[in-house]
Amino acid sequence: MAPRYTRLVESLPASVPFVGPETQERERGRPFAARLGANESVFGPSPGAIAAMERAASEVWMYGDAQSHALRTALAAHHGVTPAHIIVGEGIDGLLGYLVRLLIAPGDAVVTSDGAYPTFNYHVTGFGGVLHKVPYRGDHEDPEALLARAAEVDAKLIYLANPDNPMGSWHDAPTLQRMIAQVPEGALLVLDEAYVELAPEGTAPPVVADDPRVIRMRTFSKGHGLAGARVGYAIAAPDLISAFDKIRNHFGMCRISQAGALAALADQDWLHHVRDEVAQARNRIAAIARDNGLAPLPSATNFVAIDCGRDGAFARRVLAGLLERDVFVRMPFVAPQDRCIRVSAGRPQDLDRLAEALPAALAAARSQGS
Amino acid sequence: MAPRYTRLVESLPASVPFVGPETQERERGRPFAARLGANESVFGPSPGAIAAMERAASEVWMYGDAQSHALRTALAAHHGVTPAHIIVGEGIDGLLGYLVRLLIAPGDAVVTSDGAYPTFNYHVTGFGGVLHKVPYRGDHEDPEALLARAAEVDAKLIYLANPDNPMGSWHDAPTLQRMIAQVPEGALLVLDEAYVELAPEGTAPPVVADDPRVIRMRTFSKGHGLAGARVGYAIAAPDLISAFDKIRNHFGMCRISQAGALAALADQDWLHHVRDEVAQARNRIAAIARDNGLAPLPSATNFVAIDCGRDGAFARRVLAGLLERDVFVRMPFVAPQDRCIRVSAGRPQDLDRLAEALPAALAAARSQGS
Repeated sequence: MAPRYTRLVESLPASVPFVGPETQERERGRPFAARLGANESVFGPSPGAIAAMERAASEVWMYGDAQSHALRTALAAHHGVTPAHIIVGEGIDGLLGYLVRLLIAPGDAVVTSDGAYPTFNYHVTGFGGVLHKVPYRGDHEDPEALLARAAEVDAKLIYLANPDNPMGSWHDAPTLQRMIAQVPEGALLVLDEAYVELAPEGTAPPVVADDPRVIRMRTFSKGHGLAGARVGYAIAAPDLISAFDKIRNHFGMCRISQAGALAALADQDWLHHVRDEVAQARNRIAAIARDNGLAPLPSATNFVAIDCGRDGAFARRVLAGLLERDVFVRMPFVAPQDRCIRVSAGRPQDLDRLAEALPAALAAARSQGS
Repeated sequence: MAPRYTRLVESLPASVPFVGPETQERERGRPFAARLGANESVFGPSPGAIAAMERAASEVWMYGDAQSHALRTALAAHHGVTPAHIIVGEGIDGLLGYLVRLLIAPGDAVVTSDGAYPTFNYHVTGFGGVLHKVPYRGDHEDPEALLARAAEVDAKLIYLANPDNPMGSWHDAPTLQRMIAQVPEGALLVLDEAYVELAPEGTAPPVVADDPRVIRMRTFSKGHGLAGARVGYAIAAPDLISAFDKIRNHFGMCRISQAGALAALADQDWLHHVRDEVAQARNRIAAIARDNGLAPLPSATNFVAIDCGRDGAFARRVLAGLLERDVFVRMPFVAPQDRCIRVSAGRPQDLDRLAEALPAALAAARSQGS
């Protein structure tokens, strides 16, 4: 007899939000030559962070500090709040899971954009929540539509990423401040700022300690180049932060990762260096797109969405052509955003591979099309 | 207005299963001189594992493989099963959380021993399960009583640790095999074998692939000395293993930790070395106990429970005396096991501190007592 799963678990699909590049490589039987699909930072973390992790490796017989105290203290100083305003967790993905678990019981309403971060949706579905989706508007998430739908369905959570993934678009701080001010009674805005360190100055609204209407999600995976270390954090009112302690995996944070994140935060020069590298890479990706008659979208992130100019089926063929030519990229899941492919910032040699592969991938996509 | 938590979350206590040593050090205002409370392996991980983690540090800009493929493949070979029988997760704690989520809806029955692993209980309570506890029998978890209670309450999960934490006691493989054979229809045995690499040969029953009655939990935190890396795994029938994919944090595994665990598994010589060190440390802890007129319990783990010969209040005073004297130890939470303190295996210099502090801690405990 099989284990008796909960009714909710029985109802869940076996699908996963993302198929990792390693999984794809195993299925293909050969490695990718350019890894430009997961919005990782090929420019790497701060050398200081690498050194800190190397040092921490020999202390890894000790559990990590369950309170991530040193890191939370440094983050609090960085953001002008107190450690009680900050929770550190196993990436934003882990924190989103905990947050959904805190708020969402079967049948509860959640609002997001159609085509926004699938891992958030995965968690909402996983706890029985009901997703209400509003369309993007001009390739931007639409704050007014999100708020209106939230009021309509009495949403407990509203998700918005700024800058947005997968389109790279963004709103400025005043727009976000207006949105926060209008969050309906009983709703909480999940403001996912995974990419905000790479956005223009003035994209992140000021952190307002104790504001009960918003929780800000940040990560060391993108600008700080520590994706494999799994360190995310959230900034929110202390009551909400302390609620995580009721359910989280208290000793879940890798000790080495905590040390790496602490050193990464201290090296803001490296972050500026990465911003420069990313800006150059975005320009190069845009140029490669234009050279092939395609339209790059403006981006405040470490990736560029490239409008392939036709429908989703066409873009999927372009994507397949790039994968065949050993260039790992991804694309939006939902129309009309799925007319694009999404290319992460790479080093010159990575983007050379893209420049080489794209013309052939496009030609193949066109010849296969109807 | 505060976020609208679920009714279940509102009902949960703010308490945490364990207060970490770093938290205690911050509260005390000074560090411990000997860290003997969390059953960590002060002997450290394999030098090969440290080297692998140092190498992985510079690749940490990449997300870890979401399938932990290399590690699962090596573990499968080690245990004579297939990778489809193995799930890797963020420590046994993380895997226990996922397992409880898969099976336990509010009101569902779970059976464990009174005084067994509190983090398991934390997860059960956290998902609304109802815990039914049976007493230890002669400082051992009691398979027959667990099975009987499970049948009585129609339990979905039965928890047993072999060897046991916090007492260090163990059952032999035939006892476990009989227990597995008698798991009631509709129940699943969670066999937590966190310490089994440190137990006498013949403690672990053979792994029977595809047995739907049991899930085995293993970790790199104890014998392998990688507590801070957060790598646990479970062995079970493929159907149950694949169910984890419906809910787990797919990209939750630290890339550095995966590399460390893979190298640790390959270095069985180091594990044998650690077994020897642990055996010596257990003997020394037992000798220190006897020198102070206390009774060490036999142990198949990397810790020794020391019977302080009186009640829980007395043992708590002894514990407090050791903490005051900068020796970090813990103790069982529940009577009658709470007549003991629990001391992790340490290096000679760590146990020197224990030998130094224990007489004074005992004298103070006796003088404070009624």
